[in-house]
This record gives sequence, structure tokens and C-alpha cells, in this order.
Amino acid sequence: MERICVALIGAGRMGQIHGPNAAGHPALRLKYVVDPRPDAAQALACRLAAETAPLEQALADPAVAGVLICSSTDQHLGHTLAAAAAGKAVFCEKPIDLDLRKARQARPRLAGAPFLLGFNRRFDPHFLTLKRRLDAGEIGRLETLHLINHDPAAPPAGFVPTSGGLFKDFTIHDLDLARWLLGEEPVQVFTSASCLVDPDIGRQGDVDTARTVLKTASGRLCVISNTRRSGYGYDQRIEAFGSTGMLTAANARPDTVQTLTEGGTFAAPIHPGFAERYGEAYRAQIDHFADVVGRHATPLIGYDDGIAALVLAEACQASLDAGTAIGLH
Amino acid sequence: MERICVALIGAGRMGQIHGPNAAGHPALRLKYVVDPRPDAAQALACRLAAETAPLEQALADPAVAGVLICSSTDQHLGHTLAAAAAGKAVFCEKPIDLDLRKARQARPRLAGAPFLLGFNRRFDPHFLTLKRRLDAGEIGRLETLHLINHDPAAPPAGFVPTSGGLFKDFTIHDLDLARWLLGEEPVQVFTSASCLVDPDIGRQGDVDTARTVLKTASGRLCVISNTRRSGYGYDQRIEAFGSTGMLTAANARPDTVQTLTEGGTFAAPIHPGFAERYGEAYRAQIDHFADVVGRHATPLIGYDDGIAALVLAEACQASLDAGTAIGLH
Amino acid sequence: MERICVALIGAGRMGQIHGPNAAGHPALRLKYVVDPRPDAAQALACRLAAETAPLEQALADPAVAGVLICSSTDQHLGHTLAAAAAGKAVFCEKPIDLDLRKARQARPRLAGAPFLLGFNRRFDPHFLTLKRRLDAGEIGRLETLHLINHDPAAPPAGFVPTSGGLFKDFTIHDLDLARWLLGEEPVQVFTSASCLVDPDIGRQGDVDTARTVLKTASGRLCVISNTRRSGYGYDQRIEAFGSTGMLTAANARPDTVQTLTEGGTFAAPIHPGFAERYGEAYRAQIDHFADVVGRHATPLIGYDDGIAALVLAEACQASLDAGTAIGLH
Amino acid sequence: MERICVALIGAGRMGQIHGPNAAGHPALRLKYVVDPRPDAAQALACRLAAETAPLEQALADPAVAGVLICSSTDQHLGHTLAAAAAGKAVFCEKPIDLDLRKARQARPRLAGAPFLLGFNRRFDPHFLTLKRRLDAGEIGRLETLHLINHDPAAPPAGFVPTSGGLFKDFTIHDLDLARWLLGEEPVQVFTSASCLVDPDIGRQGDVDTARTVLKTASGRLCVISNTRRSGYGYDQRIEAFGSTGMLTAANARPDTVQTLTEGGTFAAPIHPGFAERYGEAYRAQIDHFADVVGRHATPLIGYDDGIAALVLAEACQASLDAGTAIGLH
Repeated sequence: MERICVALIGAGRMGQIHGPNAAGHPALRLKYVVDPRPDAAQALACRLAAETAPLEQALADPAVAGVLICSSTDQHLGHTLAAAAAGKAVFCEKPIDLDLRKARQARPRLAGAPFLLGFNRRFDPHFLTLKRRLDAGEIGRLETLHLINHDPAAPPAGFVPTSGGLFKDFTIHDLDLARWLLGEEPVQVFTSASCLVDPDIGRQGDVDTARTVLKTASGRLCVISNTRRSGYGYDQRIEAFGSTGMLTAANARPDTVQTLTEGGTFAAPIHPGFAERYGEAYRAQIDHFADVVGRHATPLIGYDDGIAALVLAEACQASLDAGTAIGLH
Repeated sequence: MERICVALIGAGRMGQIHGPNAAGHPALRLKYVVDPRPDAAQALACRLAAETAPLEQALADPAVAGVLICSSTDQHLGHTLAAAAAGKAVFCEKPIDLDLRKARQARPRLAGAPFLLGFNRRFDPHFLTLKRRLDAGEIGRLETLHLINHDPAAPPAGFVPTSGGLFKDFTIHDLDLARWLLGEEPVQVFTSASCLVDPDIGRQGDVDTARTVLKTASGRLCVISNTRRSGYGYDQRIEAFGSTGMLTAANARPDTVQTLTEGGTFAAPIHPGFAERYGEAYRAQIDHFADVVGRHATPLIGYDDGIAALVLAEACQASLDAGTAIGLH
Repeated sequence: MERICVALIGAGRMGQIHGPNAAGHPALRLKYVVDPRPDAAQALACRLAAETAPLEQALADPAVAGVLICSSTDQHLGHTLAAAAAGKAVFCEKPIDLDLRKARQARPRLAGAPFLLGFNRRFDPHFLTLKRRLDAGEIGRLETLHLINHDPAAPPAGFVPTSGGLFKDFTIHDLDLARWLLGEEPVQVFTSASCLVDPDIGRQGDVDTARTVLKTASGRLCVISNTRRSGYGYDQRIEAFGSTGMLTAANARPDTVQTLTEGGTFAAPIHPGFAERYGEAYRAQIDHFADVVGRHATPLIGYDDGIAALVLAEACQASLDAGTAIGLH
Repeated sequence: MERICVALIGAGRMGQIHGPNAAGHPALRLKYVVDPRPDAAQALACRLAAETAPLEQALADPAVAGVLICSSTDQHLGHTLAAAAAGKAVFCEKPIDLDLRKARQARPRLAGAPFLLGFNRRFDPHFLTLKRRLDAGEIGRLETLHLINHDPAAPPAGFVPTSGGLFKDFTIHDLDLARWLLGEEPVQVFTSASCLVDPDIGRQGDVDTARTVLKTASGRLCVISNTRRSGYGYDQRIEAFGSTGMLTAANARPDTVQTLTEGGTFAAPIHPGFAERYGEAYRAQIDHFADVVGRHATPLIGYDDGIAALVLAEACQASLDAGTAIGLH
């Protein structure tokens, strides 16, 4: 079986996750690593038996059928358009862009290029099982949802200004999960938030702790819990409540070992971060992208999902600013 | 040891819980059962080796040091004032009254009579353990809270009109728990709600499914999850998030038995209702009331706690009506 | 309803458990507390609103229909025979006697007196649920069994000589459980044991840590795990394996609270001892005895069950002494 | 980094697990697949981008530094000796041989060749965590052990005659785990067993359900639970009891999802078989073998561990045949 060539743009944190998954995938060959920082590109390319190349060269190579965009957020959209223009299938890390208007305007230029957006949680085996059971009617008709997404530790100081803020950077994952699970679009958004973790975050105009309530046209409610620093690991859970029951996806743990003593019962902490927690989801995502590149599948998460999540993220911020619920048509 | 005499007012659902606990308490003697329905009074009195009596007689008996008020909600306040006027210590089921103004106006007439309000959840051993660990600093400084309070099945049709509505009847428990655990008063309330369980409830102007977000002056956030019908039992949980960790009180279960087969892992449902779930809390509450009657303790939950919870319940409704967050003081 | 009078013989550790349960039982009235130590008898009688009396008086009182025997082990049989001779229904703490031959010889003198032996674990709600599910065929045909019975802390030094040894004093509970659950009698017994907890126990000729394997005629196997000191609480579990699945009864816990921090997940220790773990079982046992005294039920655990358990306990010791499996006909 | 070449002998069930792990290992290159069945060899070699070759050719290739022996059990020893004679590092699936005498006699011919025996469970992350905590003294001094090893479904009819019987084929894993965890050699073995799963197994002189009790010189006890057919999945657990506590490794599960309904609480079955349960262990084993081949590590499990486990397996059978405990040395 011939492997399909792909190029990786960005050798940073996410590139170092997606790169090895693409390189080790039986149906893909990672041909290029593209990064403006030569050392970073070189180190990752060497590790993955790929070449380094400037973006133009990678996109000009007709052997390259797909591009993985892991560049900085402000470059996602530009790289996406360039890759689409070159006829490549695109996998792009979230978010498409921090500027909703820009993202909307660019929409037509994507035309029919296969585009997969990197909302990894939809590929998590725990969440997929929950979704499958939900769809199978195990709890009747879905009524309410609770999404817990707590980061283990606050981001570094310099991160906030370019992050787009808590809602576009972080809550956006939950907004996508909510749309995926609710099965209808939210029509009302309310967010209450505080800066409890790090006063610096507040000084930069952002919040670090938030609770958001979504409501759909049929009255379904969804609560999203976010914090930038849990103190106890990467808390990633879903609770879904239906007309006849409840479905939960609890935190995964590194092992099943328990110690019982006179002092109590002790188990390991939950997974410390996204690399451990979503390792399988990242692999499954690349599996799906391989199918997309090979034209065996259409992308499960498209550009419009990215737009829809951005719309909700902006509504969260607007609700917080106004102290009132925001209606969406 | 001489047992202290108490009288029970109301032989209904709650009287049938508190009556036996008072009758079986080593420090108390249940002398009277008072209920306008002679059959109900007689049946319970007989079962508990007590006498039936009209209210006046019970309150006039100098041997009676305390009164347990389990009458219908619209009589709570009248019975409380009558008992206080007679110099009795009062245990009163929640809520004090559905009318906040009336409850406030009556406040001075209670004077110094010992008054214990029946927010039973503060006596639950699971929640008490959580509170103790929270106060011991196990998760650092409290930041956010999630209270889950889901009733197993919708109340009978006729219940809604006299119930006071979801917030004063049901959410009020969580509003009290929130005040107890947060350690500061909420300054902002937002509620989103739907009628998903029973259209009849909606036709009567009430909701059956709600999510409420409270915010305190220091920025602490609390989410309250309510439904009138869970479909899977009586879901009663707390999650508290602090600066260094998380504390949870999960649902209690009737037994620890599991069956493992090829088809999966099966355990019993969680407790079906309040009698099973809060049996120990009800007993502990009467324990505390025995101490109050005996003047060994001052009431842990007073009249002003009832007022404060009513204020919040009204704010929930106001927020829902206005579609905006409601500020308090 | 008239309460039936019962007398308690023995105001020690077990008398202080069964006495209050009998005194508080709606169908029983605890009339006498009998104990050769006047202070102990007086203290317990006072607490339970009963009288003290010599044994003869209690047994001569025609109002007394039942006797709870909680005296020292060497008196169980004598008190049982005296009570039976007086026409009383008997509840007797385990074991009947340490001397199997004596117990067998006394058998005919019990005649038809209702006799309930105090193997409390058969009344534990967790174990009863397991038994019910087993009988309902949830795991097909039972094949093997694992009983875990670990005491929290070694008994005091002076206990060993009069205890009858590990098997008659402690393992006997599991031998009865095994008979109850296996549904057939063991035909082979093997025990391996050590003295690992306290060398003093070894010096007195006993062991403190044992594993016993029972085999029934149809080939069912049962492992019994015993230790005199677990170090982590009172470990009381059952695992049953059948042709289509597994049933487990795990340890009960005082609460459902968990703390999650960077350091791990912490829960309370399991119950520390028999009073907490088997509180409900002890109450259910007295419930059943009330039915026995009132002639509404025949005893679920009879004299012959006590004999059968003793036979197995002796086989454990014989196996340990001989280093070989012991066959039973 | 140059990859070290290895050859795989045997393209059957275990070869299909170890082959891909070796082929995908960053430090190894799988050069040859050797199997007398050309189709099987060809199919696996093609999938793993390796060549097929006769054994002689693979062993004669000086580029090949290590050999993975996954042939049928009766060939393990012959292949091991041939590979060792050719100067290769050897990874050999368990058991070394079914004939203890033959295995002992061959010992000197292995000389100094690096030899790693495939007791995969020592590489399981759950069991490794348990071992690490045990060694860290979390439960004080180890006293007793319980190993649960239940296969999901009985092997095919034709398997028994060549399997070596339950103890050499299956229990041998637990005998190795016991030696690893106990920290001292068993001096006494007792086994009780039955044929409850499949009468055919009994007709062929084997058993399918067994309980084994090991005792060490210092009095530590270990129970091994085995069945050929659990009916509920691949049950793989450890319980270790020490002077101050208990350590458990529970069954791993495919996901953390639970459904709660009126009917109960439902979770997925435990892992169905060894491929799912020990996937990580198999990978870690090849990691270690890569270190052995690269001479960065000495094998954690050697030839003598294989001999010791066989000695114990023979003692199990001898105990079962004799109905008595078997002493060792």
C-alpha cells in the first residue's frame, strides 16, 4: 500500500503531537516539516525521518496531498487558505482564527477543499462511547448537559494577550462539544466569570474561572465549567441527563492501583495534562484525517463548526461584559 | 435521665419521618401528635405511643418544651409564632413561608425563642465530611461549587400551585447549601430554566429543569443543577473546587454489590428518594434539635437563614423572568 | 400491639450491641439484663430501661418469651440449654461451644426450642443482595467463591487461650458463609497458615494469618482469607464466580467523599470494625429473632449450622497440623 | 540513530503481537519473519515491511542482533539454543519448555547469551505501579498476596493435549508474578482444582478451575485463582496485604462511561482478552528487549526464572495428584 504524503506546518507544542502520529500512521508519510525556526523544524524532522522545507516548497510538491496546520493561531487561517489554494486536504488546529469576521469572510475561498478542524475531544474514546450510548437512547431524550473542562495549571504570563481570551482559546472546545452533543444550536448564552487564579490574567482583561449556561430552542440546558488552574490535574468530564437517565464520562486515570491504610484510601492523581488524557484522541483524529486525505471520508468537523464555536465564544464574552443573557438567532 | 417532652404538628409526609425519630430519641419523649385530620393524627400517635391533642392543648402543656412543625407550608409561620409565643423551642420544616415579606415582618415576634429550620442536608454525613475537609483546607481556598439536586420523579399534578414554584420549594435547599459552603453571600444570581419534564408544570407557570449560577463578592461561583424528574433516582451530589484541589460527595448507594458479565458491569440504582438518602440526616437533625430543646446547643440553622434562602429563591425567579442576572445588595 | 418480653444474658461487648437493638425494637421489650458482674448489668439495664435479675429469675418469668445469650463462649451451651428447658426461644452468639463433641451431645436436649445462632453476616444487606442475585442466576451456576475476612487489629494478649483459636473463633464466620453460599457441603478442607502479626499468638500455639481452600462434592472451590490484623480497617468482602459472570460485595465506607489534589485521590478508610460495618446486620438479626420469638418465623440459622461450622473449623486445624487436605464425608 | 535488526520466529498469535511492536519500535528494525508456513510468514512480513527467510538465513545474518521466539511451545527451547549459538540476544515467549528436565539440561548451552523470557505481566503498568508502591513500603512488610488470573473463554478443544496442562500453560504466569512480588521463594505448594467449565478438558486429564496456595520460608502466603472461562472478560488483578495496609490493582476498563437509570448503573465489561489488557505491557516488554539487544540493559526475567516457574507448576500438579501440600527444597 502506497503511503500518502503529508506536510506538517509548525513544529511547536501541537506539531510535536500531530507530527509523530502522522509519521507513524500506516497510511501516511510525513514528508515535510515546515517551521520558520530552522532549529525546531530540523529537530522534529530528524526525529520523524522527514525533510524540512519552506512552506512554498511543501505546498508546491504534487506528492503532498494533505497539510497539518499547527502554526500559531494568528497564522491558522492564512495557512489554511494557502493549502486549500494548492489543492491540499487541510487539518487545522483550533481555532480557525480569533477574528470571527475574518473567518467568515474567508469562508468562500476555502471552496470545496476537505477541511478538518482540530476539536480533538470529539475523537476521545470515552466521549465517543458516551455519544454512542446517548444516540442509542440509553437515557431517553437528552435534556441537560454538564461539561467540565479544567486545565491543570495557569498558562505562562505572556500567553494571555495572544490567546484570544478564555472563551476563544479554551471554552471553545466545550462550545463545540455542546453543539455536538446537544443536537441543536444554542439560542441563549449566559456567562459568569471571575479572576481567581492569577491577578495578572485579570490585569490583562481576561478571566480564568467561568461558568456558562447555554439554552437551545427546545429548552435544553448546558452548563460549561472552566478554570485555568484546577490544582489536581486535567479534569475532563461530561454528564448528560435525559428523560430516563444519566450518562457520565469520568476522568481517566493512569492506573487502577489503590492503597488502603488506616489513614484512608489513596489512588494516583488523574491525568496531568492533555498529552496524556487525549493521546488516543489525537491518534484517532489523525486516523480520520488519513481517511479524509485518502478521500475515504468527509471531515467530521468542518469550517462551519469552527465558525459556530467562535460565534458562541463571542457570545460568552458579550454576556460577561453585559451581565445579561445573550440571544442568538 | 428524664426525657424532654415534644409535640409534633402535622402527621403527613414529613411528620412521619420526624415523628418516629423524635419518639425513638433517647433524650426526647413525643407526647402529642397534632393534626386537623383525626385519623392521620390517631394512626401516627398510636404507632409512636403518643397522644393526640388539639394544638392549643399541646402548646398549653408546660411539660412540652419543644415543637416539631411539619404542617403544610402555608401554616409553618403561624405555627412557629404560636409555639414561640408559648415559649417552646421550635423545629420548623422548610420553607418558613412562601411570602418573603410576611416572613420578614414576623421576624421580631419570634424574639429569642430557639428556632431550628429544617434544611436537612446540612446534617447529611457525606456533606458534613465534605464541609469538614473543606474547612480543613484540603483543597486550599474555595473557588467554585457545583450542587446537583435532581428529584427522581415529578410531583403530582396538584402540587405545583401550592408549592411556591421550583425555586422556593426545591432549589431553596441548594441555596442554603450554597450559603453554608461558600462562606459568603451571593451578590449576583442568574437562572436559566425550561419545562421539559411535564407540560402541565409549564401550563401552571412553573419550570421543572433549571440551572442557576451564583456569584459572591469575592468572585466565587456556584452552579445549581435542578430537575423535577431524573429518571434514575435521587441525585444528590456536591463538587467543590479550590485553589489546590477538588472535593466531591458522590451519590450514596444501597449496597456495594456489582455483577460483571459479558454484557457489562451492573450495580443497583442510587437511592430512589429522600427517605432513603437522607435517613441519617433526619436523625442527626433531631439529635441536634434535642440539644436545642435541652438548651445544650444553639440552633445551627436559624430564621435568618430561611429569610436569606427565600431572598435568593426570589432572585432566581426574577432572573428567569427578566432573562438577566439579578444583583443583590 | 403488645411487645414480647425478652431477657439479655451478658452485658459485655456483644450484649451492648444486641441489648439496645432489642430494647429499641418495636415488637420486643427488654425486661431483664442478666450478668454475674452487678455493675455491668446495672449500667446496661439502666441505659435500656430494663431490670437486672439473676438468671433463674429471668428464666422463671413466664412473661419472658425469648433469651439473648451474649455470655462468654464457655457459657453459651449451658445458657442455651437452661433457656430451652424453660421453654424460651433462644438467640445465641456464635460459637455454640468450642467443644464439638459436647455440642453434639447436647443436641437432643434442645428438642424443639426455637434456636437462632448469631452468624450475623447472613443478615448483612450487602451480602444478602449478593445472595439474592446469585440465586436469581445473574452469574449462571456458581463455581468458586472467595471470602475475605480481615480483622483490623490483633486481639489483646489474654484473648488467645480462651478463644478456641483462629478457626473456631474467627474463620467460623466464613465457614458458615461458605456453606450458605455454596449450596453444598465441603468435602475437602486445606488450610495454610502463619504467625505473622504477633509472635505471642504463635507462642500460644495459634496462628494469625490463614488461607483455607474448601472443595465440595461437585467440585466447587472456596478460598477463605483471614488475618487478625489488616492495618487498614475491617475488610469484609465476597467474590462469587459463576459460569457466566462474577458477583462482588465490596467494602462499605462511611462516606462517599473524595479529595483530588496534585498528590492523588483520597477517600476515607473503610469501616474500622464490626460495630460500624455490621450495624445493620445486627439490627436485622434482632428483627428476625423478634419474628422467631413471636412464632412468625423459624430460625434461619439453627443449631445444626453451628455444628457444621465447628466441624469445618476443626478440619482447618487438622489440615494445618497435618500439612495435608482433610476429607469430610 | 541506526536501528538494530531483529528477526521474528513464528507468525502466529503471539508473533502477530510482538512483530508489530518490534517493527514500530524506534530503536529496532524487524528484518525477517520466519515461519514454516509460507503464507503466514509472507502475510505478516508484508504488513510489517520485513522479509521472509528460513531460520538458518535469519540466524546467519550478522546484521541480526536479536531474535523474538514466538514459535510453538515445543520449539521454544530449540530455537532459543540455535539463536544463542548464533550469538543473538533472545526474547522467548513463555514457557521455555514443558519438560523441566530438558530445560534444566539445556541451561549450560545458553551460556552468556542475553535471554529475556516473555512473562509480560511484569511489564504491565498497573502491576508495575503496585510493585513500586509495595517496594516503597506503602503497606509495610508484605504478608500475603492474592493473584486473580481468569481467562475469558475456554481454549479450543485441540489445545489441551499440547498445552502442558493448566499449570504449565496458564498458572505459570501467576507463579512468576508470585515470585516477583513475594521477594522469596515458595517452600510449600497446595493446589485444589476441578473441571467445571468443559468436561472435555477433564476427559483429557486436565482441570480448568484451580486455587493454589503458596507459602514461603518466612510464612508469607499467596493464593492464585485460575479459571479457563470467566464468562465476564479477562480478569487480571492483584491484591497485596502488608503489615500496615493493602494494595490492589483492579481490572482496567475500555472507558469510564456509566449509564444510570431506574434499573441500575451500567458500565462496559472489563477488557475481553489479553491483547487489549496487556497491549501496553507487550510494548514495554519490547522496549526492554530493545535495551537488551542494544546491550543497555540486562534481561529483567531470565532463563532461571523460567525454570523456577516450571518447578512450581510441577508442584501444583503434584499437589493436585496427591491431595497434599508439596514441600520444595
